[in-house]
Order: sequence, then structure tokens, then C-alpha cells
Amino acid sequence: MTDTPTAAMLVIGDEILSGRTRDSNMHFLAGELTRHNIPLMEVRVIPDIAATITAAVTALSEAHTYVFTSGGIGPTHDDITADAVAAAFGAHIGVRDDARAILEAHYANRGTTINEARLRMARIPEGAALIDNPVSAAPGFILGNVHVMAGVPAVFEAMVASVLPGLTGGAPLLSQSVTLYMPEGEIAGPLGALARDFPDLSMGSYPFQRDGAFGAQIVVRGTDGPRIDAAMARLGEVLPQVGK
Amino acid sequence: MTDTPTAAMLVIGDEILSGRTRDSNMHFLAGELTRHNIPLMEVRVIPDIAATITAAVTALSEAHTYVFTSGGIGPTHDDITADAVAAAFGAHIGVRDDARAILEAHYANRGTTINEARLRMARIPEGAALIDNPVSAAPGFILGNVHVMAGVPAVFEAMVASVLPGLTGGAPLLSQSVTLYMPEGEIAGPLGALARDFPDLSMGSYPFQRDGAFGAQIVVRGTDGPRIDAAMARLGEVLPQVGK
Repeated sequence: MTDTPTAAMLVIGDEILSGRTRDSNMHFLAGELTRHNIPLMEVRVIPDIAATITAAVTALSEAHTYVFTSGGIGPTHDDITADAVAAAFGAHIGVRDDARAILEAHYANRGTTINEARLRMARIPEGAALIDNPVSAAPGFILGNVHVMAGVPAVFEAMVASVLPGLTGGAPLLSQSVTLYMPEGEIAGPLGALARDFPDLSMGSYPFQRDGAFGAQIVVRGTDGPRIDAAMARLGEVLPQVGK
Repeated sequence: MTDTPTAAMLVIGDEILSGRTRDSNMHFLAGELTRHNIPLMEVRVIPDIAATITAAVTALSEAHTYVFTSGGIGPTHDDITADAVAAAFGAHIGVRDDARAILEAHYANRGTTINEARLRMARIPEGAALIDNPVSAAPGFILGNVHVMAGVPAVFEAMVASVLPGLTGGAPLLSQSVTLYMPEGEIAGPLGALARDFPDLSMGSYPFQRDGAFGAQIVVRGTDGPRIDAAMARLGEVLPQVGK
């Protein structure tokens, strides 16, 4: 592990891989982590298979500072994420009193009762910290560096909001961008030369086609503001269209 | 490799991981593969880092029948997918005459000429078959079981359309579904018992909240139609709300 924290995400669910459901949690988390200066380095989307989840959690939690999972913590038989994550850490898992109390209070408020299926959502590994679920009560949890959260977007987003303030971000990543209405093939040469001259910065080119015209957005990223200023100035020299 | 083909996808691009761009290629490919009876078993989203791309291509191409990549085959310095895929197969890569001819004809038609940056898009590994790009000419390619395609959605989708008819699918996966307006926590018990009685079928429960009411869509999948009929009939017995 280096000084700069890194993150990985695990999206768990057959319905994403079959194309039945379009995932939105990855894009949401990516934006939030960027705002918190924690680079997201890898996302894996995997099916509801226990051994697959356990292996992916092990690989990602060893390689990254923080891991975030989405999906598979509901009440049905195919919700196996909590058990698979516990297995990755060799942690005991069972219905925990603190989680059960949260669920009991929630269902009592709604005039219904907890049952065996709902009790599955109180299965929390020993030693894990609970993540608050203000939407539908059933908590997520943090075990080691793995943050286990719901797949339903409204719940996932609420859990991310409660978890992020507790994480340590790296140096702020600064960026400047410019949109050029010229083909990327004519930007690429000068931009590549510039990238070689500024190896401490990252330069991205994102092509688009808009109203029949080709163009690209050029984004220069780094942690040193004056260096980015210098690169943008040089970009204006080699591509006079910048600023037009 | 088993009799049933499986697929994996590699989404390549810093802009997806930073949250700048929302990927749509994964969801598109997932749906297309499902229609072709090729289960998508894993997706990885990774940055534009050569060693990372090469390692992921190696891992996925060994584990699956087909691999599909998206992104990183444009003209700019950060487009390194072709070289990284070639490295995974130990294949030589350079500007190939067939790809160069396609690009030259395309730019001649538009009254412009090929340059050094655009020539990067003619870098194709030895032994690879080209994938047609009807949108912007620059071809993708197939090397081993890896299908290397563009990240721009219109181009990616056109390339998938030209590639899929050449792939061998498995037995058609059949499904039936029913929408229940009751909390998932009350569906989960009977559904779990049913899943144990029909281990040859896959039963998924996808909860939603609509107009303030809780519900779930239950999807039963398998390759044996009469077995799915039987499971749906049993579902109607244990959950009388089915069919209401």
C-alpha cells in the first residue's frame, strides 16, 4: 500500500450481468470518490456465486486501501454477499443483536413483524461496524477495509454518504479542460508531445461527435496547480484553436 | 472451458473510473450476449495502464470462451489497448497494410489525410482479424478469443453487431417472471424453499419501490421450459398473490 489511498469496487448481481438491470452505483461511487481524492482503480462486476465473491473480495482488499461492494444483502436466498465477505476474512457470521434490534424497531414502526427471511439481513460478521441505512433500515457493514452496501441505488447512495466522511483522501487532484472542435486525429500528435514533456501530469483526450462535427475534450490532471497552468499555456501554443 | 460458452468484458478507461464518463457499453453488451445465449460472467473496469490491461486480458482470456474489450483504440497517446492486448498474447504489433488502406480511403473521402497519430489506429497485432467500423473507419480486431473494440458507444455497438453472428451460443436460456406488490421480506421465505426444490433453475428476486409501495419482480430462469412452468405453478400455490 502506498501513501496515496486507492479504491476498488465490487458490483455483485446476476441481474447486472444479464443486462436486466443497468447499474448506476459504479458511476455514482466513481464521482464521489474523485471528489474525496480517492482514486478508484478497479471495478469488477460478478455474479451471485459465493466462491466468486469471496475470491474477488480477497484480491481487491489486499490490493487497495478501500473496497466498496454493492448488492446481495437483501432477505432472499440469492443474497449471499455478507456470508461471502465474512468467509474472505475468516470471520464468524450470524444474526447480531444490534442489527436485529434495528430491524425489529423498523418493522414494528410499520406495523409488521420480523420473520426468518428478514432476519437474514441481521447476519453481520463478528467485528464488523454497521453502516446506517436511513431508507429501509437493513444495515450495511464495514469489515476490515471492505464496505458492504446495498444494491438498490437510493440505499447505496445513502450508505456512501455516511461512509465517505470517515475515509482519508489523498492530495487533491486538480484539473483543467478545454473543448476543441477539431478531429482527435489532429490533436493527438501535439498532445502526445506535450504529455511527454509533462510526465507528472495526466492528459486525457475524450472524443465526441456533436451536431455532425468532430471534437474532443482535453483534460489535464495533476496535483500541482502551476504545472497544470504551464501545460495549458503550452497547449494553447501548439494548438492555436485552444481558447477560440 | 466447459460446453457452455462464457464471456467476460474489459472496460478500459480512466474517464470511467473518475466518474467523468458514464459507461453504457457494459449494459449494451450484457443484453446482446444474453440474447445470444452467451452468459456474461465477469466485467472489469480498469485504467489506461499497459501492465494492468495486459494482466487483465491474460486472466480473462484464460478463464472464458470470449472476451470483449471497450476503449483505448483511438489516435492519442493514452490509447494503448492494442499494444497491451498484443503483449498478452506475445504477438508482434505494428502498422498493418490492410488497416492502413482502410484509414487512407476513409480520410481521402473526407478530403483530409492520414497523419502519424491517425496511423496509430492501424497498429494491429499479427494474426488478428479486423473488425469493421462503419462509423469512423478505424477497425477493431480479434486476437485469440479477445475482441478489441472502441469505447465510443456508437462504434462499440456497431462492432458488437458485426461480431456476434460469428460466435457460438449455448442452449437458449428461458425465463418467466411475475411482479408482486408485497415486501420482499415476505416473499423471501417461500421463494427460498422453492429454489431448494428446483436446484436446476435460477430464481431471482429484484425489489423495487414504486409510488410508495414495496414490491419485487421474481424471475425464474432455466433451459427446460416445462420445469419453469412447474416452478411458476408452485409459486402461485405458495404465494397466492401471483396472478392477482
